[in-house]
Amino acid sequence: MAKATLVTIGDEILIGQIIDSNSAYIAKKLNKIGVDVHAIYSVQDDYDEIKNALQKAEKETDIIITTGGLGPTKDDITKAVFADYFNDELVRNESVLEHIEYLFKHYIQQPILEVNRDQALVPSKAEVLFNKNGTAPGMWIHQKKLAFIALPGVPFEMKALLDKAIPKIQKKFKLPYIVHKTVLTYGLGESAIADKIEKWADDLPNHIKLAYLPNLGRVRLRLSAKGWDKQALIDEIDDKVDRLQPMIGDIIKGIEGESTPEEQIGKILTADNKTLAIAESCTGGQLAARFTAIPGASSYFTAGIISYATAIKSDFLDVNSSIIDQYSVVSAQVAEAMAKGAKEKFQVDYAVSTTGNAGPTKGDSDAPIGTVFIGLATPEMLTSFEFSMGNHRERIVQKTINKSIELLLNTLVRK
Amino acid sequence: MAKATLVTIGDEILIGQIIDSNSAYIAKKLNKIGVDVHAIYSVQDDYDEIKNALQKAEKETDIIITTGGLGPTKDDITKAVFADYFNDELVRNESVLEHIEYLFKHYIQQPILEVNRDQALVPSKAEVLFNKNGTAPGMWIHQKKLAFIALPGVPFEMKALLDKAIPKIQKKFKLPYIVHKTVLTYGLGESAIADKIEKWADDLPNHIKLAYLPNLGRVRLRLSAKGWDKQALIDEIDDKVDRLQPMIGDIIKGIEGESTPEEQIGKILTADNKTLAIAESCTGGQLAARFTAIPGASSYFTAGIISYATAIKSDFLDVNSSIIDQYSVVSAQVAEAMAKGAKEKFQVDYAVSTTGNAGPTKGDSDAPIGTVFIGLATPEMLTSFEFSMGNHRERIVQKTINKSIELLLNTLVRK
Repeated sequence: MAKATLVTIGDEILIGQIIDSNSAYIAKKLNKIGVDVHAIYSVQDDYDEIKNALQKAEKETDIIITTGGLGPTKDDITKAVFADYFNDELVRNESVLEHIEYLFKHYIQQPILEVNRDQALVPSKAEVLFNKNGTAPGMWIHQKKLAFIALPGVPFEMKALLDKAIPKIQKKFKLPYIVHKTVLTYGLGESAIADKIEKWADDLPNHIKLAYLPNLGRVRLRLSAKGWDKQALIDEIDDKVDRLQPMIGDIIKGIEGESTPEEQIGKILTADNKTLAIAESCTGGQLAARFTAIPGASSYFTAGIISYATAIKSDFLDVNSSIIDQYSVVSAQVAEAMAKGAKEKFQVDYAVSTTGNAGPTKGDSDAPIGTVFIGLATPEMLTSFEFSMGNHRERIVQKTINKSIELLLNTLVRK
Repeated sequence: MAKATLVTIGDEILIGQIIDSNSAYIAKKLNKIGVDVHAIYSVQDDYDEIKNALQKAEKETDIIITTGGLGPTKDDITKAVFADYFNDELVRNESVLEHIEYLFKHYIQQPILEVNRDQALVPSKAEVLFNKNGTAPGMWIHQKKLAFIALPGVPFEMKALLDKAIPKIQKKFKLPYIVHKTVLTYGLGESAIADKIEKWADDLPNHIKLAYLPNLGRVRLRLSAKGWDKQALIDEIDDKVDRLQPMIGDIIKGIEGESTPEEQIGKILTADNKTLAIAESCTGGQLAARFTAIPGASSYFTAGIISYATAIKSDFLDVNSSIIDQYSVVSAQVAEAMAKGAKEKFQVDYAVSTTGNAGPTKGDSDAPIGTVFIGLATPEMLTSFEFSMGNHRERIVQKTINKSIELLLNTLVRK
């Protein structure tokens, strides 16, 4: 089975300037086509370091993907290392040069320099992965039984070139099928689940792996089966999941689809021609952002309001100030009034509200840090839920967002 | 000078389930105290893989920090590898056990299992870094001239334990000072700047490094000086920055502080007792979220509205629908009317608005994808700015957010 090593090149990762999100993206894509990622190495923009990483990767794996170090400035030396590594020389690629000149003329609006033209230099053995989004070409080199792929570090350029590399990998290597199934559970911790399903887990065959993915109040159990007969894998994994029911059926809340919960909500609302509004307090815009980040959200997402100051809740959401005075701004009554207010004012079918105390200091309420109320207004009902989300600001906010989305999705699915 | 290798342990990174944000966090902290991060290795939850990574790291560096693999389930084997690696045995740490039992009794509300109790097992040579936020203890082992530090993978637990490890590292190793200064530039690309300052950059001494950090319309130039005399480093780096003025003074927009632009805005508004509201369209809540993510935002952030549907702009922000009809919803007139509406309706001193077409399909406007207007209402003026942000949805939104924050900060600083 083909294995890959990812090598990220650049001081900016090693000084913590940049979080390496490229590797996770690439790993996920490779995993989908049956390529195991064996390791990820992040190394400096340094000749010997890059060379060492390539050598080490070559010993361990079949596919080596580098990201970064393809820019026009002096610290970008990936191509020079490649040329040296393959006993090759850099030659000018005319169509890349033409593209660079075109970009400078039409988009960059700055005089083109020799260093920019030099971005068209590639090792003579390399096949160019044409980068329409930028000036740095990607490269594909196969030598012996190995594939070397160099991608730019800019994420959206990298993604487009990875899409070109994937079919080439699939063509060059015989790859197994990988089938995943992820079981969503709520209500028990990782070790308690492990205890209940111990024998079942021990009996899994070698080609089926189980992973526990705990995240802010839920644990996902991901089964991954690898093999050459796709249908057999699907049947086998379905059977394994069915056998979980007698053991932990009470905490299983479904099977995770390819889409995120907010995408599922979007699909349901769009199909039903229904609309959504959000009235946020402690989540400060992030709950709405989870929906609006998805292309097409405008077909169901009408509006959001971030009523951070208490007065905004009264003035814009018609939350009666006597309710606030009586129950405090962090209360079931206020959460419900906010959801009701958002539903009516924005004339939508569904509204979700959040009000809570995320700390680090107490706000306009005496509620302990971590207390959160989520309100939900639907065509049929108005309700709210109370939670204690711990005492860590970021986690309180993230848990509240996840919970709000979960509650809304549950309501839509149950209908 | 002390060098560190970071080793992240866990299949979830290698299958792309999780983005490794821990390494960037640790690298940044180490960099601040004068420790160079030499490399980052991400390896599987596999005995030999972890051991190999430790061996390789030991050859290359003085400090080895692992994250992950300290959980209660079977795939978590970091401690066993450590015990083997140091020819050591695992022994029960009584205060850790007591803490685990306390957490289960008061917070976890599930029966404690043997695997949970076993989290109190640590190599006998290890000094425990007590983890008050979770059940997995951190570990510090020094052997020969090296420091081995094992931290849990859960970010907020890791962060708290890293804070405990940092002073121990500072005590054990003689560390140099590192002084950074980052020059903010707008208006020229990376290679054009490199061309203008080529001689200056070539003349930098070895202990001063220059990095180009291009990001969505701006390029930051970061100078890092390392040495033993802090004041001399500061003077030297100040002098280098001064010498940039005659070369690229026209594009230098300031020196980056320790705080982010949104934190700077928060500080200024709080100090002046002024308030802010945001009226968003294409940024969908993410602009407000940048402010509300900062503790203390409630002292100046009054409200935000996400007027995603066009009608909301009229109904809630008093944007005259004849303006929308005449100029379209993506226009300078609408951006200004939104900012004005938000300022008046929310009764704040400053309001920022965004309206644009982020694609992938055109919305309620004929404006080309990437067209964005940012409106700004201050006590003194009402204005707007037009931008062409390319054709990639995520980038359009992120650029718009950065630009909005930059425009607001410039206005506040210029006052």
